[in-house]
This record gives sequence, structure tokens and C-alpha cells, in this order.
Amino acid sequence: MIKVPNIVLRPGNINVEAEQGSTLLQVIQKAGIPIVSICGGRGVCGKCRVIVVVGTENLDHLTNAELRLLSPQDIKRNVRLACQAKITGAYVVIYIPEESLITSRERAVAPVTLRDDIFPLTPLVRKIHIKLSRPTLKDNRSDFERLREVLVMQGHLPAETDLIIPLEVLRELPSILRSSDWDVTVVLYGNELVSVEPGDTINQLYGVAIDIGTSKIIACLVDLNSGKTLAEDFLENPQLAYGADVLSRITYAEKSQENLVKLQQLLLSAINKLIKNLTKRAGVDQRDIYEVVVVGNTVMHHLFFRIQPSFIARSPYVPAISSSFKCRARDLGVEINKHGYIYSLPVIGAFVGADAVANILATQMYKSEEPVLVVDIGINTEVLLGSSKIILATSAPAGPAFEGFGITHGMRAVLGAIGSIRINDSNVEYETIGGAKPRGICGSGLVDLVAELYRNGIIDSLGRFTVTNHPRVRRDHGLWRFTVALAEESATGAEIYVTLRDIETVLLAIAAIKTAWTILSGRLGVDPSEISRVYVAGSFGAKLNVDNAIEVELLPPVNKERVIFVGESAIAGAKIALKSLKARREVEEVVKTRVKYIELSADPEFREVYTKLIRIGSVKRVKSSLKKYESD
Amino acid sequence: MIKVPNIVLRPGNINVEAEQGSTLLQVIQKAGIPIVSICGGRGVCGKCRVIVVVGTENLDHLTNAELRLLSPQDIKRNVRLACQAKITGAYVVIYIPEESLITSRERAVAPVTLRDDIFPLTPLVRKIHIKLSRPTLKDNRSDFERLREVLVMQGHLPAETDLIIPLEVLRELPSILRSSDWDVTVVLYGNELVSVEPGDTINQLYGVAIDIGTSKIIACLVDLNSGKTLAEDFLENPQLAYGADVLSRITYAEKSQENLVKLQQLLLSAINKLIKNLTKRAGVDQRDIYEVVVVGNTVMHHLFFRIQPSFIARSPYVPAISSSFKCRARDLGVEINKHGYIYSLPVIGAFVGADAVANILATQMYKSEEPVLVVDIGINTEVLLGSSKIILATSAPAGPAFEGFGITHGMRAVLGAIGSIRINDSNVEYETIGGAKPRGICGSGLVDLVAELYRNGIIDSLGRFTVTNHPRVRRDHGLWRFTVALAEESATGAEIYVTLRDIETVLLAIAAIKTAWTILSGRLGVDPSEISRVYVAGSFGAKLNVDNAIEVELLPPVNKERVIFVGESAIAGAKIALKSLKARREVEEVVKTRVKYIELSADPEFREVYTKLIRIGSVKRVKSSLKKYESD
Ligand code: FES
Ligand code: FES
Repeated sequence: MIKVPNIVLRPGNINVEAEQGSTLLQVIQKAGIPIVSICGGRGVCGKCRVIVVVGTENLDHLTNAELRLLSPQDIKRNVRLACQAKITGAYVVIYIPEESLITSRERAVAPVTLRDDIFPLTPLVRKIHIKLSRPTLKDNRSDFERLREVLVMQGHLPAETDLIIPLEVLRELPSILRSSDWDVTVVLYGNELVSVEPGDTINQLYGVAIDIGTSKIIACLVDLNSGKTLAEDFLENPQLAYGADVLSRITYAEKSQENLVKLQQLLLSAINKLIKNLTKRAGVDQRDIYEVVVVGNTVMHHLFFRIQPSFIARSPYVPAISSSFKCRARDLGVEINKHGYIYSLPVIGAFVGADAVANILATQMYKSEEPVLVVDIGINTEVLLGSSKIILATSAPAGPAFEGFGITHGMRAVLGAIGSIRINDSNVEYETIGGAKPRGICGSGLVDLVAELYRNGIIDSLGRFTVTNHPRVRRDHGLWRFTVALAEESATGAEIYVTLRDIETVLLAIAAIKTAWTILSGRLGVDPSEISRVYVAGSFGAKLNVDNAIEVELLPPVNKERVIFVGESAIAGAKIALKSLKARREVEEVVKTRVKYIELSADPEFREVYTKLIRIGSVKRVKSSLKKYESD
Repeated sequence: MIKVPNIVLRPGNINVEAEQGSTLLQVIQKAGIPIVSICGGRGVCGKCRVIVVVGTENLDHLTNAELRLLSPQDIKRNVRLACQAKITGAYVVIYIPEESLITSRERAVAPVTLRDDIFPLTPLVRKIHIKLSRPTLKDNRSDFERLREVLVMQGHLPAETDLIIPLEVLRELPSILRSSDWDVTVVLYGNELVSVEPGDTINQLYGVAIDIGTSKIIACLVDLNSGKTLAEDFLENPQLAYGADVLSRITYAEKSQENLVKLQQLLLSAINKLIKNLTKRAGVDQRDIYEVVVVGNTVMHHLFFRIQPSFIARSPYVPAISSSFKCRARDLGVEINKHGYIYSLPVIGAFVGADAVANILATQMYKSEEPVLVVDIGINTEVLLGSSKIILATSAPAGPAFEGFGITHGMRAVLGAIGSIRINDSNVEYETIGGAKPRGICGSGLVDLVAELYRNGIIDSLGRFTVTNHPRVRRDHGLWRFTVALAEESATGAEIYVTLRDIETVLLAIAAIKTAWTILSGRLGVDPSEISRVYVAGSFGAKLNVDNAIEVELLPPVNKERVIFVGESAIAGAKIALKSLKARREVEEVVKTRVKYIELSADPEFREVYTKLIRIGSVKRVKSSLKKYESD
């Protein structure tokens, strides 16, 4: 292929070489610029917009996707979709606007409301300070035996336990013992001697809990002596450059081993950055971190461990491993103590991951006598229903509507997003995140909007406009729309509205989720209204109006007090597992023996119920016809 | 430093650059030529002889060591000791004679007479062929769980056992299962899933047993399905270039991390060469080897694992580890299956290693009601005495006399070595190894010689010549000598003789060994004559004349039938451990609970008894005065 010199990327004026025929998206990604490509470059999301400053003639013609997704004004301004524009000639200068960049600026994490101290503090990694007797000619046991026997004698190690020592630790042992004058701190990870440190370092013992979400990665630094969280941080998942949903990432990963490695490296670099930030902020040495507990959905889990995720995406949807898994941090490249470990909670199935297990642990639903529902809302919504006897787990393909994708003026819950809406006849009130001028509508705003439109009789139970003479209702290019914010109110100077198609998209997303909890209720023989607690997890958080969520049947028809917003609760579960070996073993056992995974997407009942449930207010009509779960 | 181009090493005409001031030995070692340097370059052994062909003027003057160790004829022929000759100028051509090269040509391994099939065949590494049901939507357990559950169901794995899967194996699992159509062979190493192979590969399962001796490395390839040894081979230990005894190697290793790595690499390259040879000969794929069991003395053990051995050599003589130890073959660089393991039997103390443990296992002495003695004769002689109740272990610093080093015409037991001698008045008969013309005297010949000289009254019990008119006895440069082979009989055309000093050296070596078994007998309260079996291990092998060995008190005064030559029996022990997990656990337990290590070199009783025992026939006078062993 012919190399085309001088593609210039702005801002930054980055000069890159590209191959003729490659897309601007490929060039930008190669240059390491975190460009948004929600649909993974398929010309569907329209988010990879760039402006051609010089050299429009050196790019291929506009594609059909661009003609569909770009406005005439866009086209006049030389906007292109990076994934569509192919390079044909020698010199192109591209400007990448800020909104096309992945950035964690202004993004908030919904506060976790679940406690992470419900188990006594007994982490798997332990530090023990010991003083050894110096060897003499009468007692010249080996260094390792001398140390082992003290650990046994002091009751830190059952006598019959094999103490394992890794080669590298063994190699350092003799000199450390002698240079510290036989006064050392040993670090035990279960029955493995992962480190020996000179002197008393008992006080320096830390762990990190990480929730690898599809769109963001949250990390907490935990002091394993006190159980306290010392620092907390998050980053956008840099894999967003390869698609917002897990399926685009699988598609990318399965193309080549190189791509798979690339996706893993993106996670690792973000995780290492988080660890660096956390330790810096808390004044902790990274080498004093001995364990990282990760949770994440099954695809994130596989990508993190660099396991090819292909078979997760294809029927019959099989993960490589579902039990808990551990490996050395160093074997992955996670920058903690060189002998430290990575532990992942088990996953439940292809689309219900370790984050759901973390939720099971954090909500303690497996100890409840009454049925408990956990809904973790995201592009892929995990739904768990059960009690101490059995827990049914499934996932609902809600799609990215609640993240604002696929909605004309949708956006994520960041500064300027309309997060709640109230309609009173012709009067429309809204609140934005941070109180800024509105730029778009985020998930909770969309739920409010649908509920309010329905309650005010502006749309019917299928989302169709029934009122055409409302001041905010208008028809444009043959499509009905409802204006939420007027042009003069908005940050962009343009109207913020939803179209009929947007409303349908939201109803489909809601239907996917309600189908999940409706079917699970049916299988368990529980009436949805009898659910004793409903935990709503995910970044939706407390912004969601419960009445409206129940009105549109996103949540079951329970007494409003039973709904608990738990925010990014998976991180609480990860912390509990980090701090308590007992908790970890307990939930591992629960997953192995009491959690039943149901593959809804492949269940004929799903399609049938889903179709019926698109209509608002349809749950009570559907529920009696449901199949019951038969244990096998 | 100034680089001096063109040092040419012959044969081979290898051109090397060297630094001014470096020795020829350093240059030759850097070039990777296996030159003998028994004393580690200290100018003591005189074995690193090379001939300067061109450029004598470009080498520094003869050193005192050379003046002492080289004959006037040598000096005339431009012979230099490589470790002494320093490079001062630009062009030197060196010839390295064959006798200065480490070579395993003509070297024999004493046949092992102990059986290695005394335990049922139950190796730690197992292959299991399984067929898995294909996943369906109704049964989409993860690949790992599917596999694990079959192993449990078929009874290969207790249900409560955690099956461990390494990251790399997990990464390969999904594609192997699918490409093999769910018909695979799994390889278990204990409770670890070390490999999954497509189809039925049950028949390909091998292990290697290795005895890393100070002077040679023996390896056996074992079929773990039949327990049969498929091939056996050995190589000189290439570390011989850094000294024949372990202490020179420790001295070299502790100088720098680089030196330590160098010594380990030498072992590894020899071991990998052996594995390659063995598998080639047996038509076996190296990747089908899943475990290597190594035994060796404690210093070889440490150098093999690249653990700094400094503290072994210094009082109070402490190894880094004494328990059995395992690590991944790959972490060391041993070329077997990439997920395979290296296992080492435990060591007993600084100078009684895993080879001695192998002897305990192979001789089964820990099951004997009566006291059993094991003497493994080498530069460092390991002595074990005990029964099913307790085993005392110690080492005797016999020195390299029996390897022929430090003896004027000493040589190792290779072609042309005088291995047995009979003297009848003035008549001297001898036999050589391979029936060749004699070139020197090896260990068994030296024992015979001392015994025959003493029996014939030519020397007294302290080795002093008492007869001066014997035709073979002569005085030269003030030193008495005895001629074994006349100049006209020998391969070199020169007389082969021993001097008074040589005889004293042999008596000191014998005294060291007899002190060891005498003291151990005393501590156990056993009369040496009551020892029920005496196993003689080491390359001495069957060549040793038992009567003579008892006469000079190298061995205790037992009935000759009780003496069993077992050759390189440590390799038999290694094979037993490779083939039987039960045997391995059994001997590990014995070492942990019933073997008591005694540091003789540091024991005041040693020096005292040793001095008395230099005299032939002194054991019975000494034994009554010995200390008894007090258990602690
Ligand atoms: S349209 Fe280009 S990445 Fe989605
Ligand atoms: S004299 Fe040179 S190595 Fe021994």
C-alpha cells in the first residue's frame, strides 16, 4: 500500500502517516487519540464527527451513512464521520471537536449508598511481623524452614498447611533476612508467602477494588488494616473508542489477536493510571498494594484477562470461565507489588457478570427471606431476582438509550444534561445537571419525559402523539416531536426536543428491562408487587424519579419506599470481597449453588412478552400467562 | 580498557577480542570453550594448561604458581596455565590441548543397581481423556465449569477441590475445546490444570529425572504411562570450568549477580541439551514432558534455581530452603511443556542435599529395622546412618582425591585410568578402565594402592614408607614415591607413580569419610560392625575392591556381603519421586520428621576424631570414646 504522508490532526497538530484507503477513524485511533466511536465504526451512531480543514478533495465521497447522519449545515462545514471518510490523497488536515473526544471531565459517579463494612475485616492478604532467632551451628535450619516454623508456632499458619514460596521471593529471602537482622514482615496471600520485607511494615497494607464498567472504570484504594477507603477515582473506559456497547468491542477483538491485546492494554493503562492517582493522592506506595479485586461484566472480565470473548457473543453464549479467578498482577501488567495478585469475583453468565455478583454481595439479597430485585441499568441491564433460596439472573438488552445514544438530543449524565422534567399542561419545567444551560437529555430525563407525556395525555401507551395542538408538539420532515428546551434556553442555541422515534426507542429500552423482571417474577411465582426491595444500581442513581419509573414500568409496581438507589454498588461488592475472605467465599458458594442464569435473549417467551410489554401499563395483563421456573 | 584484537584459540581457530590484562582463562571461558579449571583459576590445580603457539612476548611473565606446577619441559614447550597468563599485547595464538577440555567422552556412569519401581506408578502429573457435551442454550455453563464438572463426576477430582487454571491455559481453552469438537485430553498437575490438548493424547506423557552432580549431570527420560525409562544420558557439569568443588563455584557465584546467572545458565544449557538428546533418541516430543524431578547437592540445587549460595559456604551453613520446592519449568528456562513443572526433592542441610534424600528413598533405609549406612563418595561425601526410627546425616569433606585431583598422577575414572591394583612383594599388577594403556590412577585404584602397600608392609599405618629397598620405591627431589606403571607400559611414556604426599592425601580423604560414619555410629549407639547394610553410591561404583575398602577403613568393618554398590543411585531416587506421588510425600515426611542433620565440619569432636582416624586401623580404638546423640 502507498503511504500517504502528512495527515495532520488538530488540536495538537499531530502528524501521522496513513495508508491510502484507510479511514480517518483508523488513523486517529492509531495516533492514540481517544475519539468516540459508539457504534465501533459502523456508521450508525454518528458520534465520530470531525471537521476537514484542508484536503476535502483527498477524501473519498460522502457515504450513505454520512448523508443520513449529517445535516446539510454539517456538510457545508466539511463535517465528516471519521469512520466513513477514506483517505485517497496526500495531504489532509483534520480538526477533532471536543464533543468527539472521550473525556471524563464533568462526569459524575452516582454515590454508592450500600455499606462495605458488613463483614469483619479479614482480607486474604495478611502481614505478620516476626523476629527470627539467628541461625547457629546447633540450629542451622534453612531460612525458609526457620520462617515457616515461626509462622506455625505463632498460629498464623496451620501446621499441616503447605506454605508456598515463589521462586523470586525465595531468591531474595536469604539477603533480606540478614540485612534486616532477622526482623521482618511477611506477607501471606492465603498460604503463599508473597513477600518478605525488612523490619516492621505491618502498617503498610493496601488493596484496590475496581469496577470495570463498559463505559467507566471506578477504583478505590482501601487500607487493609482499617478497612477504610482512602481514595476513590474513575476514568472513562478508553475502549469507548471501539464502541459504546460490548458487542462492538467483541467484534473488534475477534478480528485479530493484536486487536484483543489492544483492548486489554487500554483497560490496563486506565487501571494503572487510576492506581497511580489513588496512591499519589493517599500518599501510599504502589508496592504496598498486594491485591486488586476486580468486578465487571463478562465481556470486560474477558477483555481484562485477555481471553478472546467471541463465544460470549454467539449462541449459546458461553464464557470461558465463570468461577472466581486469580492470577499474578505482574502477569497482566497491573502495577502493584510485583508479587501481588488480581482476583476476580465469579461471573454468572455471558451477560451477567462479576459486577452482578458484587451486587449480590453488597445487597446481601442471598440472605433475604423475601424476594429482592436488583436492576443494574446500563447498555446491558443486569436483572437479579431472588432470596435466600434461589436467585434468578438475566440480562435485558436495553440498548444505549439511557446513556443518551440513539436519541436525537440524548446525552450522558454530565454537566448540562436535563436530568428531570415536569410537564403541566403546556408548561414544561426541567432541571439540568450542575444547573448549567441544557445541552441535551440524559437517561433519567428521558424516563421523566415519557412518564410526563403519558400522564398528560400527550402520548398514548405506545408512545404515539395523541395531541397535535400542544405548543411544544410539532411536526418536522413528517416526524412528530416534542420540544423540551427552547432554542433561546439551550447552551447550543438550538431547540432540545425528542421525536416520536426517540420516544419509541425509550419505550423499547424500558420494555426490555420490564420483560426481564416480569419473566423472572413469573418463573419464581412472585407477583411483582410483592417484591420486598428493589435495588436500582448504575449511574442513573438517585436522579431517577421513582414515581415516574414505576409509572412507565421501568420498575415494578411496589410501594415507593421499597425502592433503594444504590448507585455504582458493584464497587461496594468489590470492596467487601477485598476486605473479607469470608464474604468472598460466601458469595462464591452462592453463585455456584444458588444462582440460576437464564438466557432471555434466546428464550422464545422473551420475544413474546417483550412485544406485549412495549405498551405502558401492560405488566398486569401479561403476568398471569408466564411460565414458571423448573429447577433441573 | 584497550581492546586487543585477535587472540586465536585452536583447535577451531576461534578469533576473540580480549581486554589487556585479562587472563587467557577468562578469554577462553568467554569464548564458551569448556576448559578445565578445577581450582577455579586460583593457580592450584594446574589443569588449565594451554600451549602458546604465537605471541609468548604478548603475555605476562610466568607466575610463581606456574613455576611450581609446570615442569622445565613444559616451560620449554611454551605451556602456560591459562588462569595465570595475562595478556599484555596484540596478537596471541593459543592451542588448548584435549586434556584441558571438559569432555564426557569415554566417561562412564556407574550402573545403578537399585530398582526404581518399588512404588506403584502414580505420578503427580496425570492425563485424562474426556468428551464434553456441547453447550446449548439450556446448558451454557462456562467452558471451565463444564470441564471441571466432568472431572469431578468421573472421579478424577474431589468435588471440594479447587481446580486451578493458569491464565495462559484459560486463554487457550475456548478455542481448543471447539477446534477439537469437545474431545480433549486434560493434563492435571495435582489440582492444577496445566494443559488441555485436542483429542486423545493419553499415550504421550513423559517426565525427566535429573541428578545434578558437581561433576556430572545425569538425566533419564521416563514414560509416565509405563514407568519405563526410555533413555538415559549424562554430560559433564559445564560448571567444572569454574572449579571442581562446590566452594570454588560459590566463590565465583557470590562475586556478582552476573556470575550467578552464568553458573545457572551453564547448568540449564547442559540440562536442555540432555533433554533434547533423550527425546530425540526416544522419538518423544519435548512438549509431552510435564515434569522434571531434580536432585543434587545443596549448592547445585541453589545454583540451578539461581539462589545465591553464599550462606551455605559460611558458618553456620544455612541453605535458603530445605523443603521440597517446585516452580514452573518456563520460569527457569527448562525446555519441556510450557506449562510443565520442576520439582526438587528436599535438601537436608548445607552439605547433604537432595541427592542424599534420593538415596534415602531409593535405598528405603527409612523402612529398615536395622541400622543402614549410605556413603555417597564424591568431593563432598554424604554419609547417612539410621533406620526407621531416625536417620543421621552428615557430610565428610573428603576432597577431590578420589576424583584424581591433587594426586600427582591422579585422574578420573575414564579410559586408561588404573582402577585396581594388586601388589605381591615386588610384583605389581593393575587393570585399567577399558583395558587401555594406563594414563593415571583413579579413585578405586588409589584405595587399592594404599591397602596393598599397607598389607605388604611397604607403608605404615600413617602412610609413611617403611621399606626403601623395594624395586618400585624410590626417592626423587627428597620425596619418596612408589611406581605403579613403568614408563614403557604407560600411554604417556612416563612413569605413573604416587608420592608420599599423594598417599597422605588419600589417607586424609579416607579419614574424613571414616570419621563421619564413626561419629554417626557413636551418636546412634551402634557398633560400626553391626551395620546391617552399607550402600556405596557414587561413580566409584563396583570398581571398588570391598576387602581393600574395609582394610583401609573407608568402609566399616562389616561382613563383605553387606556392602552393596549402588552406583549413581540418586538418579534412581529421582525416578521414584517422579513416578510416585506417594513416594515423594513419604520421603518429604521422613526428611521433615526423622532426619537429623549434623554439621560435622563445625563439631569440635570432628577435628579430634579425624586426627586420630588418619591412622589405618584406628576405628576400634576411637569408637568407645564417642558422644551419643541427644534428641532435642
Ligand atoms: S458513526 Fe462513526 S463510529 Fe459510529
Ligand atoms: S591452575 Fe589454572 S585453573 Fe587451576
